[in-house]
Amino acid sequence: MKRIAIQGSIGSFHDIAAHQYFKDEQIQLICCSTFEQVFENIKHDPTVIGMLAIENTIAGSLLHNYELLRDSGTTIVGEHKLHIEHSICCLPEDSWETITEVHSHPVALMQCRGFLAGHPEMKAVEAQDTAGAAKFISENKCKGWAAICNANAARLYGMKILQESIEDNKHNFTRFLVVSNPNKADFLRPLEQTNKASIVFSLPHEEGSLSQVLSIFSFYKINLTKIQSLPIIGHEWEYMFYVDLAFNRLTRYRQSIDAIMPLTKELKILGEYQDDGKQPKP
Amino acid sequence: MKRIAIQGSIGSFHDIAAHQYFKDEQIQLICCSTFEQVFENIKHDPTVIGMLAIENTIAGSLLHNYELLRDSGTTIVGEHKLHIEHSICCLPEDSWETITEVHSHPVALMQCRGFLAGHPEMKAVEAQDTAGAAKFISENKCKGWAAICNANAARLYGMKILQESIEDNKHNFTRFLVVSNPNKADFLRPLEQTNKASIVFSLPHEEGSLSQVLSIFSFYKINLTKIQSLPIIGHEWEYMFYVDLAFNRLTRYRQSIDAIMPLTKELKILGEYQDDGKQPKP
Repeated sequence: MKRIAIQGSIGSFHDIAAHQYFKDEQIQLICCSTFEQVFENIKHDPTVIGMLAIENTIAGSLLHNYELLRDSGTTIVGEHKLHIEHSICCLPEDSWETITEVHSHPVALMQCRGFLAGHPEMKAVEAQDTAGAAKFISENKCKGWAAICNANAARLYGMKILQESIEDNKHNFTRFLVVSNPNKADFLRPLEQTNKASIVFSLPHEEGSLSQVLSIFSFYKINLTKIQSLPIIGHEWEYMFYVDLAFNRLTRYRQSIDAIMPLTKELKILGEYQDDGKQPKP
Repeated sequence: MKRIAIQGSIGSFHDIAAHQYFKDEQIQLICCSTFEQVFENIKHDPTVIGMLAIENTIAGSLLHNYELLRDSGTTIVGEHKLHIEHSICCLPEDSWETITEVHSHPVALMQCRGFLAGHPEMKAVEAQDTAGAAKFISENKCKGWAAICNANAARLYGMKILQESIEDNKHNFTRFLVVSNPNKADFLRPLEQTNKASIVFSLPHEEGSLSQVLSIFSFYKINLTKIQSLPIIGHEWEYMFYVDLAFNRLTRYRQSIDAIMPLTKELKILGEYQDDGKQPKP
């Protein structure tokens, strides 16, 4: 049985993503309250696998998770894309008229901004987790409090759903990464099916340095599926680049990495894994 | 007298950024509760100038503001970088022992995550604005409520500062854009001092298409200071690229734009303006 460390409670989007990704296997969740704890669990027990959100179509990249990942000593072994739908739920005895506070994760609150703007009578309170908010309200019988979470979590904790699909944008997807101790990686992903990689590197401030690196990838027929630059604080004009690559042949990709190495600084491979395939449709 | 539309109240970081940017001029603020309203103000009165946060070292890019900017019909005429420091403040009669709720903008709450984790007794409540939270608490005499905002706003609204510099990361900077009706742009920025541009374009899914565009910029000696790809929802494998360019000669830059045009789709120049210069130091 695989043990998967996630941020959030049973019923959270991380839980759903983990069960969908490991759909043919028995898994046991280790629920953590922070992403730091997810990585600590893997550090203390190399057999633990982590699952963490890395980007969302509305909220963008989770820069803090990129940073944790880079410094964690773990490697990415897979990815999973999930369509995100939010419901508002409350205790069975509550109703629209009695709700004064709505609790959820800040990213979920942001994704329901339009809904919240239409309900100025509800105070938006930040929680560590979407499903965790529903759980807390249910267990502590918090009258007048609502939670924003997925409909399954609402049912799981015996909450009443006031309204489903309250997110502003129906094209709301989160991409999750599956991470593990590098020594365990080969048991977790079929290397022959690897067709995607995430890397990070910095570049010296020389004209055209990024163009040179991307030209090399192009010569090797490696496709970029994501690029994001981040300034390196305190190093004026130096940038860190997070890049996702897609390829057909692992050898060709590895040759391209050897080829860009001398042109980059602090090149780090965050992981090599199998693409989750096309964008999920709502 | 220039009229500047900002998101937030008097005393907010947008207010500070506006006064620093227009430091030698008399300005009058139009305080809006949303970024949408900032753009609506410019639409209704072409003499109004807008100021909006676009990225932060901790929170990353404000993707929603990029989207609003792209669709707004305004152009960027300037930028300003501001060091962000947060204080926690309350009514003079309150103290650490009596605070049960802390109100602020979600991004400010995120930037003080470490501080809030150390104060689980305080409920984190989202507000539209940092200074606005202090103003509300002060005017409504909300006992037991604290606000997170800059120290000036706390003093402005007669609040007691419990602690200064509560942000997790002292290297916390926000970059603001100054935007206007394109017909007014030439009165607002000296075209001969223009050395930066922000553009957005999409690329067809062809191998090396980004590499070609960046090679052209490199041939024209145009530097990239930022690049971010965003997937176009519903168009599998198509991406939108937000790119900031730095250059010495405006003509050379404009020639490079002409040169990349045939290789891109939906190329849009978001603005040409003067670089705020080097990264501010904390």
